[in-house]
Amino acid sequence: MAAEGSATGRFEPVREVFEDLLAAEPGLSAQLCVRWRGDVVVDLAGGDGLEADDLTAVFSVSKGMAALTVGLLVETGELDIDAPVARYWPEFAAKGKAGVTVAQLLSHQAGLVNATPPLAVADVLDSTVGAAKLAASRPLWRPGSAFGYHALTLGVFMEELVRRLRGTTLQHLYDEAIRRPHGIDAYLGLPEELDWRYRPVLPVASPPDAVPTDDLAALAMLSLLAPPGGGGVAETTNLTASRRIGPAAGGGVASARGLAALYAAAFGQAGPPLLSAMTIERMSQEQVWGVDRIHGVEAAFGVGFMRPIPRLPWGSYRAFGHDGMGGALGFADPLHDLSFGYVPRPWSDPSCDHERAVALSVAARRCASA
Amino acid sequence: MAAEGSATGRFEPVREVFEDLLAAEPGLSAQLCVRWRGDVVVDLAGGDGLEADDLTAVFSVSKGMAALTVGLLVETGELDIDAPVARYWPEFAAKGKAGVTVAQLLSHQAGLVNATPPLAVADVLDSTVGAAKLAASRPLWRPGSAFGYHALTLGVFMEELVRRLRGTTLQHLYDEAIRRPHGIDAYLGLPEELDWRYRPVLPVASPPDAVPTDDLAALAMLSLLAPPGGGGVAETTNLTASRRIGPAAGGGVASARGLAALYAAAFGQAGPPLLSAMTIERMSQEQVWGVDRIHGVEAAFGVGFMRPIPRLPWGSYRAFGHDGMGGALGFADPLHDLSFGYVPRPWSDPSCDHERAVALSVAARRCASA
Amino acid sequence: MAAEGSATGRFEPVREVFEDLLAAEPGLSAQLCVRWRGDVVVDLAGGDGLEADDLTAVFSVSKGMAALTVGLLVETGELDIDAPVARYWPEFAAKGKAGVTVAQLLSHQAGLVNATPPLAVADVLDSTVGAAKLAASRPLWRPGSAFGYHALTLGVFMEELVRRLRGTTLQHLYDEAIRRPHGIDAYLGLPEELDWRYRPVLPVASPPDAVPTDDLAALAMLSLLAPPGGGGVAETTNLTASRRIGPAAGGGVASARGLAALYAAAFGQAGPPLLSAMTIERMSQEQVWGVDRIHGVEAAFGVGFMRPIPRLPWGSYRAFGHDGMGGALGFADPLHDLSFGYVPRPWSDPSCDHERAVALSVAARRCASA
Repeated sequence: MAAEGSATGRFEPVREVFEDLLAAEPGLSAQLCVRWRGDVVVDLAGGDGLEADDLTAVFSVSKGMAALTVGLLVETGELDIDAPVARYWPEFAAKGKAGVTVAQLLSHQAGLVNATPPLAVADVLDSTVGAAKLAASRPLWRPGSAFGYHALTLGVFMEELVRRLRGTTLQHLYDEAIRRPHGIDAYLGLPEELDWRYRPVLPVASPPDAVPTDDLAALAMLSLLAPPGGGGVAETTNLTASRRIGPAAGGGVASARGLAALYAAAFGQAGPPLLSAMTIERMSQEQVWGVDRIHGVEAAFGVGFMRPIPRLPWGSYRAFGHDGMGGALGFADPLHDLSFGYVPRPWSDPSCDHERAVALSVAARRCASA
Repeated sequence: MAAEGSATGRFEPVREVFEDLLAAEPGLSAQLCVRWRGDVVVDLAGGDGLEADDLTAVFSVSKGMAALTVGLLVETGELDIDAPVARYWPEFAAKGKAGVTVAQLLSHQAGLVNATPPLAVADVLDSTVGAAKLAASRPLWRPGSAFGYHALTLGVFMEELVRRLRGTTLQHLYDEAIRRPHGIDAYLGLPEELDWRYRPVLPVASPPDAVPTDDLAALAMLSLLAPPGGGGVAETTNLTASRRIGPAAGGGVASARGLAALYAAAFGQAGPPLLSAMTIERMSQEQVWGVDRIHGVEAAFGVGFMRPIPRLPWGSYRAFGHDGMGGALGFADPLHDLSFGYVPRPWSDPSCDHERAVALSVAARRCASA
Repeated sequence: MAAEGSATGRFEPVREVFEDLLAAEPGLSAQLCVRWRGDVVVDLAGGDGLEADDLTAVFSVSKGMAALTVGLLVETGELDIDAPVARYWPEFAAKGKAGVTVAQLLSHQAGLVNATPPLAVADVLDSTVGAAKLAASRPLWRPGSAFGYHALTLGVFMEELVRRLRGTTLQHLYDEAIRRPHGIDAYLGLPEELDWRYRPVLPVASPPDAVPTDDLAALAMLSLLAPPGGGGVAETTNLTASRRIGPAAGGGVASARGLAALYAAAFGQAGPPLLSAMTIERMSQEQVWGVDRIHGVEAAFGVGFMRPIPRLPWGSYRAFGHDGMGGALGFADPLHDLSFGYVPRPWSDPSCDHERAVALSVAARRCASA
């Protein structure tokens, strides 16, 4: 299926991979943008549903946007990732958490995938409430003994740390220090005047089974986003209120161009880098790798950022970024001097999420190495 | 196959699951008791071999009974699970174990699945001897670097801790503080006058291959319980002497009613709880999760207690308890306000042990949530 | 296929296993030597290509030879495996490595499978250069959070520690304190006058796919030994210069007799042991077990030494040694009072490496237990 836009020079082969993916999955529409050595070398969009200038929800890709924002505080020395969280957030020391470090907290090791008792959706939208409830909770596993995807609470943690250190919201800091100065088309909190560009998340074709579950995975997700009373991820995400707030855990809205521009700015592909090489080294250093306690599959995390793994080799050993439910991916890869944004219209089939982004990244990195 | 007893109100569907399991496995007999919001809602027995009033060996379910007993010392503050074991048991500091905490020791992380040189069966029956030999041994793995089921020595550890702190046996403390006051039909040390109720463990139909092995798994089990000279688990367990002592590692004798009553007492389903919510939170907090070094399969442990896992979802994320060889299971689930005891006549087929108990627990929890 | 040499007494059955392996794999030639209670009980060679007196490359078996050498410093108390590496090597403290212990470093936990920027082959051959570059690098994963086979850099670490503590090379210490006094036919640095006995490594029949990769596994291996410009492991290993230096990571040259004699000397099968029982206990204690971050398969390591695992049960729970690419294996097994050397002519098929050595070890241990 023909895509609009360009894949130039040695990156021409990426177009074929992009078009093959569209052809293979009727109903898929997507954007792809790759920057290499400072230039946009791939800028494609195709399929019915998402054009090059559209914006849509990128779910946990937001965590990478937020981690870059937290990185600004690491860069200035305001935040020491090896310090206990409680240095910045004293209430967090309760219930056996006094020794938990910022690096552990932001690499999904704290065992706080939810609070006791469980949070409501409103506690994530207004994370001052969520943060207080999490600070008062005992970790579900001994911190450091395991890691498991803190799908919703990781955003609360990053937001609270910015609030404690700067007295402002993470979203505000992102806007002022990153998005506006660099003209980046990726939002934590979409301004009302851009709402016309937002393409809603599509409801999943066959919703997951409604069988009630009571395990850690359900605690981490379902009680918030798929309550028995109805409503699901798509509805919650498409709420105007949520989009306006832009929760760091998963409320971001972006285009592929925006994500590529963001990660290009991060490591200095264009202009002075947002984060120095040392800050990037520290935040992208692998903090955990192995089987995720919540999802039961291989995963790896740096500080805030996701790391590529053999199962999902979306970047080189130096890459840092984050993927999101529905299949979006944003990352920087200093080894290849490359930044990458992929945004599909979410989400036709959540079960085969990330294969597409990986295939596109492998193709782009092969072109860069050619 | 028809079972005797009752499954009342919303728990009626549990009867069918119980009867289907009996029908599916000729020769199986079993007891099941579930308490919900303080009431007995399921009380079933069926199959030839185990009637409602019978008692039989429940193997490692004993570890849960012992952990509740150790919990009494946590409750009073006598035992700090985050303290080094050596605070209470100075000899334990030898051979690189000075830093091992009580929580690590009681969550199978100490690397002492056996002593150097290996223990004899008598060293477990008289655990003062076993404890001294273990204290003088170097861990087989660096404590904290892995966990692996301490099938026999975990009981020795719990017994020694009670001895050090109270100058009495764990069995005595269990009797005086838990079993007698609450009239619980589950024993660590069966009194002679109840021997007539004991149904012996059945010898396994096809004994395991006699090939000599020399790995950690064999060290943890075979040299004690399946010595080349003959004799096996069933024979050892059926010894009157062992039953009278009731080793905490696996020598308990119980009915399903007894186990349900024990866990109901633990979290206060009926009367004041044996352990406060905070002590339960601390002891049921997941200390380790992943692949067990000894068994090579997924497992998870709190302090003394076993934790449910995706592979064996025998309880909610707040459940604590323990299963046993042959298929018995006892646990409390504060999330559902439910306690549970399942005791099959052990053991027809050790390889499919715990599926039955899980199926019954899933059914009971579904009824509770209905 | 008939083998030359002897398998005596209760070890006679080992000959059949050895000959069956030769028969099963055309082109295989190999040496096997087993010592039991101080005597050589198996001494076999067979196949076209490697006779009993020949020497060939044993790759990472060298790491076990080097670990025994490091053990000499543990034995004297010069090296404390629980101390930070930086106590002996101050520059190593850079980039978040101040707390990394010797035991962590020598059990593949440091996250330094390569330096930043990557090392050249020359940096491993002259490990003073390699050591300086590694000391200045940030670990790729947070030390202690994972382990992954440091195929090339583990040797650099051991060499640097000896240099720092003794002011001489590891190879020199091995020669002076181990090889010469005990007359052992295994070399870290083959003297020129023995070159005539060296049988070169055979090039692999079908070289691995040349697809460029950019993940951690490639970083750990390919950039050094399979550079895009051509050349591979066999060529590098067969270089006279490399053989003369004998890098601890994988440059050793040995016969099976030499390996069996080395490990016999280690734990005192013949004469006073090189290492006391306590030093052996400490260095063979399992430091890590689980899925290797680099290779993605089960592995276990002590300090410098490899440990047997369920997947590759090449020794009892007390065994310590190391295998090597191409299939060689050397180890001591104090439980069975046995030492073992197996050296195939490397390497016909790298994918089924270690099954042969395991089969021979299982056979030998079964004979010892009979």
